[in-house]
Amino acid sequence: MKLVIALLLLCALGILSQQSGSAQTASPQHRLMPVPASVQFQTGRLKIDASFTAAAQGHTDARLEAAIHRAARRLEGRTGFEFSRAQAAASQSTTLLIECKGPGKPVPSIAEDESYSLDVSERQAVLKAATVVGAMRGLETFLQLLEGDRQGYFIPSVSIQDKPRFPWRGLLIDVARHYEPVEVIKRNLDAMAAVKLNVLHWHLTEDQGFRVETKRYPKLHQMGSDGLYYTQDQVRDVIAYARDRGIRVMPEFDLPGHATSWLVGHPEFGSAPGPYKIERKAGIFEPALDPTREELYKFLEGFFTEMAQLFADDYIHIGGDENEGHQWTKNEQIQAFMKAKGIKDNHALQAYFNQRVSKIMQKLGKKMIGWDEILHPDLPKDTVIHSWRGPASLAEAARKGYDGILSSGYYIDLIFPTRQHYKVDPVAADSNLTAQELSHILGGEATMWSEWVSPETIDSRIWPRTAAIAERLWSPRDVTDVDDMYRRLDSISIQLEELGLTHEKNADMMLRRMAGTKEIGPLKTLVSVVEPVKEYRRNQARTATMLTPLTRFIDAARPDSEAGRRFAAMVDGLLSDVPYFHRNQDRIKAVLTEWRNVRPALDAMIDKAPILREAEQLPRDLSEIGSAGLEALSYLAADVAPPAGWREAKMAMLEQAAKPKAEVEFAMIVPVRKLIILAAEMPGLKSIPHSQWKDRVHTLTVDNSR
Amino acid sequence: MKLVIALLLLCALGILSQQSGSAQTASPQHRLMPVPASVQFQTGRLKIDASFTAAAQGHTDARLEAAIHRAARRLEGRTGFEFSRAQAAASQSTTLLIECKGPGKPVPSIAEDESYSLDVSERQAVLKAATVVGAMRGLETFLQLLEGDRQGYFIPSVSIQDKPRFPWRGLLIDVARHYEPVEVIKRNLDAMAAVKLNVLHWHLTEDQGFRVETKRYPKLHQMGSDGLYYTQDQVRDVIAYARDRGIRVMPEFDLPGHATSWLVGHPEFGSAPGPYKIERKAGIFEPALDPTREELYKFLEGFFTEMAQLFADDYIHIGGDENEGHQWTKNEQIQAFMKAKGIKDNHALQAYFNQRVSKIMQKLGKKMIGWDEILHPDLPKDTVIHSWRGPASLAEAARKGYDGILSSGYYIDLIFPTRQHYKVDPVAADSNLTAQELSHILGGEATMWSEWVSPETIDSRIWPRTAAIAERLWSPRDVTDVDDMYRRLDSISIQLEELGLTHEKNADMMLRRMAGTKEIGPLKTLVSVVEPVKEYRRNQARTATMLTPLTRFIDAARPDSEAGRRFAAMVDGLLSDVPYFHRNQDRIKAVLTEWRNVRPALDAMIDKAPILREAEQLPRDLSEIGSAGLEALSYLAADVAPPAGWREAKMAMLEQAAKPKAEVEFAMIVPVRKLIILAAEMPGLKSIPHSQWKDRVHTLTVDNSR
Repeated sequence: MKLVIALLLLCALGILSQQSGSAQTASPQHRLMPVPASVQFQTGRLKIDASFTAAAQGHTDARLEAAIHRAARRLEGRTGFEFSRAQAAASQSTTLLIECKGPGKPVPSIAEDESYSLDVSERQAVLKAATVVGAMRGLETFLQLLEGDRQGYFIPSVSIQDKPRFPWRGLLIDVARHYEPVEVIKRNLDAMAAVKLNVLHWHLTEDQGFRVETKRYPKLHQMGSDGLYYTQDQVRDVIAYARDRGIRVMPEFDLPGHATSWLVGHPEFGSAPGPYKIERKAGIFEPALDPTREELYKFLEGFFTEMAQLFADDYIHIGGDENEGHQWTKNEQIQAFMKAKGIKDNHALQAYFNQRVSKIMQKLGKKMIGWDEILHPDLPKDTVIHSWRGPASLAEAARKGYDGILSSGYYIDLIFPTRQHYKVDPVAADSNLTAQELSHILGGEATMWSEWVSPETIDSRIWPRTAAIAERLWSPRDVTDVDDMYRRLDSISIQLEELGLTHEKNADMMLRRMAGTKEIGPLKTLVSVVEPVKEYRRNQARTATMLTPLTRFIDAARPDSEAGRRFAAMVDGLLSDVPYFHRNQDRIKAVLTEWRNVRPALDAMIDKAPILREAEQLPRDLSEIGSAGLEALSYLAADVAPPAGWREAKMAMLEQAAKPKAEVEFAMIVPVRKLIILAAEMPGLKSIPHSQWKDRVHTLTVDNSR
Repeated sequence: MKLVIALLLLCALGILSQQSGSAQTASPQHRLMPVPASVQFQTGRLKIDASFTAAAQGHTDARLEAAIHRAARRLEGRTGFEFSRAQAAASQSTTLLIECKGPGKPVPSIAEDESYSLDVSERQAVLKAATVVGAMRGLETFLQLLEGDRQGYFIPSVSIQDKPRFPWRGLLIDVARHYEPVEVIKRNLDAMAAVKLNVLHWHLTEDQGFRVETKRYPKLHQMGSDGLYYTQDQVRDVIAYARDRGIRVMPEFDLPGHATSWLVGHPEFGSAPGPYKIERKAGIFEPALDPTREELYKFLEGFFTEMAQLFADDYIHIGGDENEGHQWTKNEQIQAFMKAKGIKDNHALQAYFNQRVSKIMQKLGKKMIGWDEILHPDLPKDTVIHSWRGPASLAEAARKGYDGILSSGYYIDLIFPTRQHYKVDPVAADSNLTAQELSHILGGEATMWSEWVSPETIDSRIWPRTAAIAERLWSPRDVTDVDDMYRRLDSISIQLEELGLTHEKNADMMLRRMAGTKEIGPLKTLVSVVEPVKEYRRNQARTATMLTPLTRFIDAARPDSEAGRRFAAMVDGLLSDVPYFHRNQDRIKAVLTEWRNVRPALDAMIDKAPILREAEQLPRDLSEIGSAGLEALSYLAADVAPPAGWREAKMAMLEQAAKPKAEVEFAMIVPVRKLIILAAEMPGLKSIPHSQWKDRVHTLTVDNSR
């Protein structure tokens, strides 16, 4: 009898969990990211077991076969089944049938049709796409649909129609400030494909490094890279790997500023005599190419001719940002040139340079793209504006007829929480663009500037946050539920690990190295509630160079503390539980108690590990934060008003604790502040009707706890 | 006053920790592995801070400079300091002065002088070596000496004279059963260098795969590898990488058996007509080359000529193992050949084959090495015998004048605990060899046969256990303290992670993938107390092939359970605490309670993760084991005799629990059994004098708990 009831319950749950769901109101059970344009779940499931087969009918080619092979291996890895490797003939009994119309573009392109449909019934999954790239996007969706329960693994019955909102969905990886080996690039390409990103923006040159081999001007990479550059064979390998995943590889050669590394081998193109050394610091530096020299354009034409052959993409990014022109202003010959040509200022001189470079690009059949600064009335209309200034500058460019992509708001190097990036839309709500103008907004790119990342840490700065940006660029505009995003993000984050990404696993490894032991429990508690300082504060906090080891506590800390987020949600739950404030109390107490008690263990670890010494105030702060929260809870529980001065003392303590130490900051100051305010305000609350408490609590805590 | 006392205490501790210590009685404070031939710690310390410099005087070259650079970067990573990159001139103020006499052998060789001395005073560390390789060995020792405390990082003052006991200290990596990408090989070369191993034995061909590109006979790798082979460029890259770390790269081409993959493209050399397919199963298979065909030797001469050019090492390994000759026996033409030539059996036929191959090797200037089976009176004396049979077979070969290396006892694929490998010495204690004969015993190799490892798991099967084998082959014979070995091994294991090794970090990642969540605490508890089944039982337990995913619970489990080892030590501590049996009681109780209580959480996880279903009995067993242990403790504490039948019931339960499930087995059955026996025997103990308890307890528990 019990068994029957249990089975009925399971069935009911099963049916419930398969109903509902559309793109707009993301269904609670699916973990798709990005959310498809349209999803309809149905009753039923497609069983996934050892008999799984996948086969293509219609068009097929090596790229599609390889993609199907990779998807099958990942499915094997997750389920533990060994699938038959025999070439399955497409039939009605194929588990996953892929119907592809054609190969799509030979070189990944912004014009690629990436749409697909996926229909899963109890009998079969059918994936249809116009192109191989569309089929690859659908394969990733298929893998994300996998679920498991007592009955085994399955794909829920579903009907999906999907296509991207924007055709340009990129990730910029700066390999100049810190070099990243090919394997790092490759695993990130795999992760990009998993969340349907389609442009690797390879930021190859900077003041701090020139990272690509040139046969024509070998002094560039030989003298500008410390030996850390990609050979042309490696570049071709990366491009082929990206193409296999439907990803464009767009190179950036930043000009005329950010160019110190060019001038180490070629000081003759500098606007000051030199000599130049590879820049080791982070920041904006003076060295700039001299746009008045004719030989420079011959050199650049030679250089870009070589690069245009190496990189098949339609676009070449020429940077163009942050050239402040100090060297130009100081150079008499340049000033004379400007006077003679009637060039009124440095901005106009850079426009002159851009036009010359633009002509080279036209000759090579490439489209030029550059940062905001390059926008100038004389610029050809097929130039693309890359905005680090914001959606408004993008809309302005669109109105002028220029294509544009957004990166403002997607600067993942600045360590902002995911929800902040998630809210940024390439099209501002108030932009009032015509449909024609709107079509100029091509999409956006997350930017992984690499001043403070190493091969060990870069994945943790890119992932999982970039998956939410990928969703912003792929999914319908109205997919904006932050809690639901986080729920799915937690799941995606683990799935990315199967591709070799190290964002989860390297943090513990780094803590073990610092502590010199495997017993890092207390350190994990601490690191879980801190975040690296935001914006450019790491650079401001201490003198460091591109050669400084990135193995400190801050490097093991991760953006967007999950523990902080969970604690905040627990406290918000408690606050909303008027008039008793019971909800989550036990869980909150357990967390606070751990914070209060962990200090001695941490102190002992820090004593043995000098690299952690800089963080020694943190356990003290954490302990006090825990104590303060526990006091607040006990006042609430006992229904007793805290003594006079208690609130002020705790607020002052929190203010101190909130200050960055060792360049990390606590991620749960706000919810603890809320608890303290609530405990202190309880006497006052009692003087108003219960029906007003909720609003009042909200006003008190939200307004006073920032 | 308090401060003064604290400082005095610190000084005293410092002095204590720096005294004593020699190779023989490994000093309690150092964490060197392998233990050097001679170590004398002195009072004092060399401070390591941002002013650290390292420089070579005397001979220097690119290889030495690169090694110094790598060591400095690792030191930076551990300490967080940025050291100056300016080329430091060697002087009295250089922190680490390296005095190298010469480059050593141009190609890493068994004749290389790897000795070095390292003298660290409060002022300077001086590393002296005859060769660059010797200096590299000393650099690894220097890095292992790093310690930290409240005063910061330092190297204790010490005088070390070091050289290896055996010149051949290898790791065999089988890349044929499962292919391993170049990056896996490279990170393992780094780890090998860290523990002073000096031979990568690259097992390149097998029934299951032919893994090296040949330009002369491209059908070999094209048809025999599923596309998973090393290009010749990659081979050269690996060899250069190994040379940079003072490591030889010896290829193995297994012949005439284990050769199915050769015959896929070249069935004409088989002893049966074929066709042949790449073998997918594990085991011993019939396909063997036909030694009666003259064309085979032309083919092999062509093949080995190409490989001899590719691989610079003096030795080529020809395998020669496990050819059972079934195909030969069944082939009439071969039988006729044997009759005509007077070859009496298959072993003699293989000897004929070996002699022919040996002639090719001689012509190419290479020395031949093969497994035990190749030993035959007619074999040239410069052949090396590779023993999988044991030290006795090695001694026998030595008496016959053959060089030999040992792998019997070092089969790390069999999942035995480290202590078992550690006890195996290449020279059996009773071998009675003359000095001349002894010199024929060149060393040994750990063997990573790869039937059940993937790029994700291979590091966890090699490390850290292989570090103990490395110690056996480098350190003096009498360095045999197992507890001290484990203490140092725990430390080395973490240090290896800085080289990119994944033996620690991938286990959690695999658990996350299985569970589909980050919250894997309960699963970690379970996996920490189990070990994969030993010997060849994994293969016997279920049908699996080389294509089966290695992502199951057993793959996340690791050899030589650390938690099991610690629990056993705690219980032994308790047992030795006669007559009270109090020692460690609280800690033991905490562990047992966790085991007893973790079941519901595990059951819930398994319900959601079908891949874990096969392990569903384990939480039940673990819970019962925990309960049984707790009952034993409570009988002991209450000084009450267990009821009749209790012991038998618990023993029966343990017997069931000890049986492998999901191909893993519990690693703490023995200590729990000891607790149960002790509780049951207490009434009997009381009848004898306390002075006899210790022996009695030992007899009772050790003899009855296996």
